[in-house]
Amino acid sequence: MRLLRSTDLALRVLMRLAVAEERTNPTTRDVAEAMDVPYTHAAKVVAELQHMELLTARRGRGGGLTLTERGRTASVGALVRAFEGEGDVVDCEGASASGAGTPCPLRSACRLRGALRQAQEAFFTSLDPLTVADIITGPTGPLLLEISRTPRP
Amino acid sequence: MRLLRSTDLALRVLMRLAVAEERTNPTTRDVAEAMDVPYTHAAKVVAELQHMELLTARRGRGGGLTLTERGRTASVGALVRAFEGEGDVVDCEGASASGAGTPCPLRSACRLRGALRQAQEAFFTSLDPLTVADIITGPTGPLLLEISRTPRP
Repeated sequence: MRLLRSTDLALRVLMRLAVAEERTNPTTRDVAEAMDVPYTHAAKVVAELQHMELLTARRGRGGGLTLTERGRTASVGALVRAFEGEGDVVDCEGASASGAGTPCPLRSACRLRGALRQAQEAFFTSLDPLTVADIITGPTGPLLLEISRTPRP
Repeated sequence: MRLLRSTDLALRVLMRLAVAEERTNPTTRDVAEAMDVPYTHAAKVVAELQHMELLTARRGRGGGLTLTERGRTASVGALVRAFEGEGDVVDCEGASASGAGTPCPLRSACRLRGALRQAQEAFFTSLDPLTVADIITGPTGPLLLEISRTPRP
């Protein structure tokens, strides 16, 4: 079972910002490099997070990305739900099937599909009580800062 | 969020067998064609399901795949858990990262990872009470039979 890469990245960006020191707000390029993803991919996720008012982005000297209060207290469940969207956990519509892309003939009358949707909802619900601030407390926070300070090769 | 393709296929194979008429047990090749997947992929999943004693496979005339009683009453949650294994829902180890395959530097001290594992467990647990027989009752059963009867082009 895998989350979308954009969901994964959104979580990591917020975690990274949640531990950023005030004077060293990372830029989108910093984040892309730290997460080892293409700049365009990071920029798309950052734009989405900005649209959701979870971070602010300022250009120029002293600029960079800053987590908003709303971002710090955002529910991880709500965030994952928003980034994952309404997609099925199995390929009912044949979007990525073996070349042919044939939709599953059962898709209109499948009890499994509904059960899998409920299971997905249970997954999201389990993450609902957790905030971005919660997942960077404990050992993760200091470690993230240490990583940020490591000079790049 | 996506399940592995083998999990998806395992569920469909069991559903297909659960509605098979006694004299027309499908073969692995039939199943592969009906599900529009490569034969080798179907054969691997069928072998795994046979190993789990959820189906029997007989060669030759009058042979084919048959669901066992254990297969009919198998928990969908247990099946999905078995096929999904212990993998992370995000790419902590960098196995499929953007070319470089760099493991996430946080993986040893990440509170998110544990939370995502719990969420995955909530997903499985939600499917636990459901059996293979359950998901083919209702409209899905008759429809599956209709599909099986459709002559191939």
